[in-house]
Amino acid sequence: MSDGQMTDLTELAQQLRVDAVRCSEVASSGHPTSSLSAADLMAVLLARHLRYDFDDPSNPENDHLIFSKGHATPLLYSMYKAAGAISDDELVTYRALGSRLEGHPTPRLPWVEVATGALGQGLPIGVGTALAGKRLDRLPYRVWVLCGDSELAEGSMAEAFEHAGYEGLDRLVAIIDVNRLGQRGPTRFGWDTGAYARRIEPRGWNTIEIDGHNPQEIEQAYAAAESSAKPTAILARTTKGAGVSAVADQEGKHGKPVPDVDEAISELGGPREIRVGVVKPSYTAPPHSFGEPARYEPPTYNVGDDVATRNAFGEAFAALGHARPDVVGLDAEVSDSTRMQFFAKEHPDRFFQFYIAEQQMIAAAVGLQVRGWKPYAATFAAFLSRAYDFIRMAAISRADLRLVGSHAGIAIGQDGPSQMGLEDIAALRAVHSSTVLHPCDGNQTAALVGEMADRTGISYLRTGRGETPVIYGPDEDFPIGGSRVLRSSSDDAVTLIGAGVTVHEALAAADQLESEGVRARVIDVYSIKPVDAFTVRAAAEETGCLVTVEDHWAEGGLGDAVSDVFASGIPTPAMIKLAVREMPGSASPAEQLRMAGIDRAAIASAVRTFLTNRSVTARPTR
Amino acid sequence: MSDGQMTDLTELAQQLRVDAVRCSEVASSGHPTSSLSAADLMAVLLARHLRYDFDDPSNPENDHLIFSKGHATPLLYSMYKAAGAISDDELVTYRALGSRLEGHPTPRLPWVEVATGALGQGLPIGVGTALAGKRLDRLPYRVWVLCGDSELAEGSMAEAFEHAGYEGLDRLVAIIDVNRLGQRGPTRFGWDTGAYARRIEPRGWNTIEIDGHNPQEIEQAYAAAESSAKPTAILARTTKGAGVSAVADQEGKHGKPVPDVDEAISELGGPREIRVGVVKPSYTAPPHSFGEPARYEPPTYNVGDDVATRNAFGEAFAALGHARPDVVGLDAEVSDSTRMQFFAKEHPDRFFQFYIAEQQMIAAAVGLQVRGWKPYAATFAAFLSRAYDFIRMAAISRADLRLVGSHAGIAIGQDGPSQMGLEDIAALRAVHSSTVLHPCDGNQTAALVGEMADRTGISYLRTGRGETPVIYGPDEDFPIGGSRVLRSSSDDAVTLIGAGVTVHEALAAADQLESEGVRARVIDVYSIKPVDAFTVRAAAEETGCLVTVEDHWAEGGLGDAVSDVFASGIPTPAMIKLAVREMPGSASPAEQLRMAGIDRAAIASAVRTFLTNRSVTARPTR
Repeated sequence: MSDGQMTDLTELAQQLRVDAVRCSEVASSGHPTSSLSAADLMAVLLARHLRYDFDDPSNPENDHLIFSKGHATPLLYSMYKAAGAISDDELVTYRALGSRLEGHPTPRLPWVEVATGALGQGLPIGVGTALAGKRLDRLPYRVWVLCGDSELAEGSMAEAFEHAGYEGLDRLVAIIDVNRLGQRGPTRFGWDTGAYARRIEPRGWNTIEIDGHNPQEIEQAYAAAESSAKPTAILARTTKGAGVSAVADQEGKHGKPVPDVDEAISELGGPREIRVGVVKPSYTAPPHSFGEPARYEPPTYNVGDDVATRNAFGEAFAALGHARPDVVGLDAEVSDSTRMQFFAKEHPDRFFQFYIAEQQMIAAAVGLQVRGWKPYAATFAAFLSRAYDFIRMAAISRADLRLVGSHAGIAIGQDGPSQMGLEDIAALRAVHSSTVLHPCDGNQTAALVGEMADRTGISYLRTGRGETPVIYGPDEDFPIGGSRVLRSSSDDAVTLIGAGVTVHEALAAADQLESEGVRARVIDVYSIKPVDAFTVRAAAEETGCLVTVEDHWAEGGLGDAVSDVFASGIPTPAMIKLAVREMPGSASPAEQLRMAGIDRAAIASAVRTFLTNRSVTARPTR
Repeated sequence: MSDGQMTDLTELAQQLRVDAVRCSEVASSGHPTSSLSAADLMAVLLARHLRYDFDDPSNPENDHLIFSKGHATPLLYSMYKAAGAISDDELVTYRALGSRLEGHPTPRLPWVEVATGALGQGLPIGVGTALAGKRLDRLPYRVWVLCGDSELAEGSMAEAFEHAGYEGLDRLVAIIDVNRLGQRGPTRFGWDTGAYARRIEPRGWNTIEIDGHNPQEIEQAYAAAESSAKPTAILARTTKGAGVSAVADQEGKHGKPVPDVDEAISELGGPREIRVGVVKPSYTAPPHSFGEPARYEPPTYNVGDDVATRNAFGEAFAALGHARPDVVGLDAEVSDSTRMQFFAKEHPDRFFQFYIAEQQMIAAAVGLQVRGWKPYAATFAAFLSRAYDFIRMAAISRADLRLVGSHAGIAIGQDGPSQMGLEDIAALRAVHSSTVLHPCDGNQTAALVGEMADRTGISYLRTGRGETPVIYGPDEDFPIGGSRVLRSSSDDAVTLIGAGVTVHEALAAADQLESEGVRARVIDVYSIKPVDAFTVRAAAEETGCLVTVEDHWAEGGLGDAVSDVFASGIPTPAMIKLAVREMPGSASPAEQLRMAGIDRAAIASAVRTFLTNRSVTARPTR
């Protein structure tokens, strides 16, 4: 670079610093010091290496820029201003009510593809987008991820380094802002960039250690990254708060405005009005396509046959792969159990193996959907809990993800509680705009696998390990938000509500009760969120008592979803919730259902007790 | 070792193999092949290196043995038999209803300290127990952790290697059974033990690569580990299914009995009746103590002052540290925010910094409590989601943990949704035998911090970022399972139920309604699980309508906890649930509450609407 180019970059970096300090001051909050350390790194990137069309964020050729250190939004938004994407007037709306410039980046801004702010997520998500570039789109876009040094302590970062190296994601660049200071004090390794290099390099990465405030070294590092055959980690030694002596390299200055903004701006050389003409990507080729869409031809099962819903998922998803060239399958080393293996076999180009790294699997799904691919990620329902923070954040990313959790509930039997998904419904219901589906038979499962394909938000399919009887024909529709009334009469004394394996127990209980002269309505609430409020409320009005039965802990699951239907001041029925309440051990599936009190006998018994008590006490509510 | 000793070890290993094959056959399930690979490793450990008193599992001098590859229970239980701890009759109850020999190990067995079975957890838990040995008990016990090779893909394992190396846990030994085959096929690195060594050694570990079926090499490795000044990873190349040619080194043989048990036993040389006299630890010294217990003198706050509950937690926990020499504090690099920093400052010997590695933090808490220490682990409520699988498993471990989640809800304000705990109550309620507490003022917080100290199971304290007025005096009691009725009269038309920040909004709404001639009862449900069913039911009977208000998603939180009180067929009141339903952005705390419809105005408005509708429609329930 010429001296003039160097000067221009230094000036740009100082402008980013001034704007970062300014917007944090206006907001009275934010992270200017974490922005100041990375300003030179981002100035060189923005001016010389990023290929991005700010007028067309959906351009498939665009590079991708992820702030894994999401708190550095003062810097990110100052870059947007320098690129002409936002005005100075908008910059100073930072963190105000209604502003797109939130405290941490979210896709409310068209140039932000994924939300960050929970540390350790940006790089694993970037791995997903880089995978899309290499294996799906087959386009040369780069994925630049600005990481903090503190977040390298997260195991998810290790998963990301491992996976990117293994897949040879040469267009992924991790720019690591080693500013030595975390939120509450020094990091484990301080400025020892070599310590990081020794951990990253063996994983198949190119590592480069530089002075993160020297534009020349930064430039050389980016150029080296662009010609590397491996993913590149640039370990940049920086000073937190660089450029503002009142805060530079000091503890206790994290996450707050600088003490004297005027003095800081003056020290930084005052405001500037540099506008960067960010280079747009040059056209190469359209994204790769895996063929034309076709009609989804799900597998079909005969009524009365016994089919495991996990099996139906596997067969249906493989079939969906033929109909939908945009769906992709993700596994964390359990595809033989989840039955994702069928898709893997038939669509190896669209199948991704993450080994036992659920966080990286979910993060990659987020990164893949950034480019329009439709990921289905499957593991045991219990092990989705490993990636719960990633699922939570995916909702803030407005990501469209499809999750599949197999081996739901105690009905798995002998393996014991570590393998049983018993909190998955609660966890997934409590994700913003999520969908929670729990089919009870093969044909219903196959239909729901298709329904999920175009569902927005986080949709979750809960499947079972063991076989259950097929009760629906192959041509029936199961819209999300619907339910099925399986038994109904004008003199139903009670309504039994189940999903998955408990539908079959409820049906058997209804048969038993009918033999005793008690009519019970039975509803299959295969869509737990959104739940079919209309049908549930009608049952409440017509039968007066709802008995929910679920293979899940008593908290946050099907029972709570049904209760919620009445939480708007409307008249409420009597409710009985049957759920798992004691820690299970090992036992056969039937023994487990019996011990937990969610089998047919327990349901019938609960109904009898309720009806007896009601006839005795008959106490009205107000 | 002499040839005779070698032969004895080989014979013992074959016995372990035979018994592993036998018990899996009786159970018709289980993981014999994953047991066969590690039989030699465990034979040498049991016979020559483990120091353990099977008659006194609580002996503080005992070594600790953790099967991180928890599915290898056929091997673990065969070791217990060889040690004389269980009989052969009990061995063949494996995985049967009522047996202590569950599919994956749990503390139903006195020699199992922590549950495993979710991979990647045993080693981080072992780090916690080794920390207890080095820094708290100050005893020379060793922690031996048998790991699988597949589970090394979990980021939590990277966190564990990092932390153990950093802390110099020389008495921690990871025995890694590199059998090349995961559940659904080959692992990423196969038998390349060097690939693992290159990843582990830079983290401050001693690594030893051996043939895992050669007793001499195993013996030497253990001896080297015992004299190492660093933690040691023994990378043992093994054959999955070793000793049984029908399954050895073959894909598709995971997690199922061998095809012909008689042939397998014959190939293994038939049953043996070897009994190992496991060496008991020799007495050295009692565990270190940090002094005598004293009376807990919590901080006190004046009614009417404004105090953040996170601050009260920090001050109270520091005070508890003086009263209780057995409590310890754990941080994941946010102690300035959670206020764990006060404890860190006053009790540095009992404070543990994990940097940003929430999984390792929670796992270490589990490992510390194994030795009787009482861990309080704090991070942002949102980031506890990072460790949800560890919390789930901790419940199966019957662990006593105290979790603290700060920055609850939208009330944090400008930082935006990535930092807001909005699913934490749902997630923590859905943990077996958990306790969920959410105080609204400083004195209540301080009291609950003390209540948690002797609580069994997983207890969770949810604290807020901003200040709230102190409404309770410093000498009031707040038992777990209780609540506080803050407004009550004989003509209450409705009941408002809140916790944390919404208590104050409910009080203000009640004041507003009273000025309009409407009396509202107000209940502070600081104990969300267990909830005070008696008080809630009484309010339902007496006022007919419950309005719950929570700074949490609408699913699985306070509202659902209150609904649950009526889910046993008893008469139900009208319910109105006010909760967060739209994705928040950045805004001030007051703006956030208003936008979400959970502030005083929204509460009052909901009550007015309900009362108007009720007077108009007056439709009875059945």
